[in-house]
Amino acid sequence: MYFGTLEAGGTKMVLSVGNEKNELLEQASIPTEAPEKTIPAMIDWFRDKRIVSLGIGTFGPVDLKKDSPTYGWITSTPKPGWRNRPLLQPMLDALGVPGLIDTDVNAAALAEWKLGAAKGLDSCLYVTVGTGIGAGLVIEGKLVHGLVHPEMGHMLLRQEPDDQTPVGFCPYHAGCLEGLASGPAIEKRWGKKGYELPPDHPAWTLEASYLAQMCMNVVCAFSPEKIILGGGVMQQKQLFPLIRRKTLALLNGYVQAGAILDNIDNYIVEPGLGTKSGATGALLLARQAHADAQNPECLQ
Amino acid sequence: MYFGTLEAGGTKMVLSVGNEKNELLEQASIPTEAPEKTIPAMIDWFRDKRIVSLGIGTFGPVDLKKDSPTYGWITSTPKPGWRNRPLLQPMLDALGVPGLIDTDVNAAALAEWKLGAAKGLDSCLYVTVGTGIGAGLVIEGKLVHGLVHPEMGHMLLRQEPDDQTPVGFCPYHAGCLEGLASGPAIEKRWGKKGYELPPDHPAWTLEASYLAQMCMNVVCAFSPEKIILGGGVMQQKQLFPLIRRKTLALLNGYVQAGAILDNIDNYIVEPGLGTKSGATGALLLARQAHADAQNPECLQ
Repeated sequence: MYFGTLEAGGTKMVLSVGNEKNELLEQASIPTEAPEKTIPAMIDWFRDKRIVSLGIGTFGPVDLKKDSPTYGWITSTPKPGWRNRPLLQPMLDALGVPGLIDTDVNAAALAEWKLGAAKGLDSCLYVTVGTGIGAGLVIEGKLVHGLVHPEMGHMLLRQEPDDQTPVGFCPYHAGCLEGLASGPAIEKRWGKKGYELPPDHPAWTLEASYLAQMCMNVVCAFSPEKIILGGGVMQQKQLFPLIRRKTLALLNGYVQAGAILDNIDNYIVEPGLGTKSGATGALLLARQAHADAQNPECLQ
Repeated sequence: MYFGTLEAGGTKMVLSVGNEKNELLEQASIPTEAPEKTIPAMIDWFRDKRIVSLGIGTFGPVDLKKDSPTYGWITSTPKPGWRNRPLLQPMLDALGVPGLIDTDVNAAALAEWKLGAAKGLDSCLYVTVGTGIGAGLVIEGKLVHGLVHPEMGHMLLRQEPDDQTPVGFCPYHAGCLEGLASGPAIEKRWGKKGYELPPDHPAWTLEASYLAQMCMNVVCAFSPEKIILGGGVMQQKQLFPLIRRKTLALLNGYVQAGAILDNIDNYIVEPGLGTKSGATGALLLARQAHADAQNPECLQ
């Protein structure tokens, strides 16, 4: 049995077909242009794949309220052509299959929780640090949506004393995480792209300080059992020990959890599924949509 | 049918008996002294009340992992005599009833979600601002515990430019919410207790700024459908419009939710149950413990 997956990004759409072993088989990538062009192209690709359902992890903001008339629509994005446009339903209608949609980071969090670094736990936070900063969240065994969905990148942080650009570069917020610590923020602050800076550059100490503040704040806010850091910036592996050390220093022994105090190397971690968290999460959403359609009485 | 409730505080233990209409009937208060003295006194009070179960909302930190050998124990508190001491089990054993325990703020969040300001929603945050700052959290219809339990008061905040004491007064953390905005922080910063300061004192603008930062950060972190602010400091009702206005200013239109943008007066609110949130939550925990004991097959 085959399931369709879509990782919908602002630059490209990554399509795949997966199976019941959670393996991703065939894959393709289509540039993200206007929906009138891109959605039919994606439908065409899936047309002969004999998929039984579709799972989408998407850029946002996206309407995830299942009882909303605009469920599965992209909402207030600056991405040309996509503002207030449906993504899920046109694909389901054309392909004649059921489907589910969530944010790209929630899809990744789901996959890491079911199959990756947080397998067997009740909660985890998945954060991507790249062009933007976003997070997906599983709590008490459920993906968190809430009023809209988490926008972790815009949490306000305390300025670090040695930061020459302490309000950061977010057009909306002075001093938010994304404006201080995303890939573009690194480039604007230091005049070079992150991968051009050597591993011992002070950029990484500062970067780790802000990401450690985020780790501390989420430990205080909802106490996840695992913090998983992915995305392009986290390819700088020297960040992990810096973030762990700084998080412990910030918490200062206040939260008495062995998982943090005695085992921080296993608490703030890389994704267990490498770069496949997002696509695997979309596959799990597709499998859920198929299961729901088979057993509607199991739906809450 | 009668249910026992206990609000366990660092200063006093408030005991009550409630019924199936969620009404709190008889009530008593016992000073919190050493557990050897206070626990038997509480047992004595409940002895003739014919309760079928007990619900406890307690100060913390407390072990809430049901499969832990120290479930229901107070853990790393500085409170004399209570460090690493059991609270729940000795009472259940002596009274011969089932019971459940959670944090005082989670109990309050539960009550506000089932019966109060967040009735009918899937999520809410209940924050108490008083001697300390703590929060209880319902997400996707479940109380959040996570690794330990939320310690929202220790979230780091951005310093406000006009704050002369910008690292606050927490012995653990420079610049955390509790150290900046609790009742004792107000007193230390201004040299007077909060209720001695007039409603137009600059203390309240600053207080509202920090609480608004917290509101912004939780909207970004997990997007609750309602933020409920209780506790002694929030008796200063002039804070509510200040917090609402400042939260909107900080978010700066980024989170496109009508509940926030168009209806902030109904988003950041007072407790719907007034000062009874905590006791009512303990009653709901007692009722849950009774139901679980009657229908063990419904337990997950």
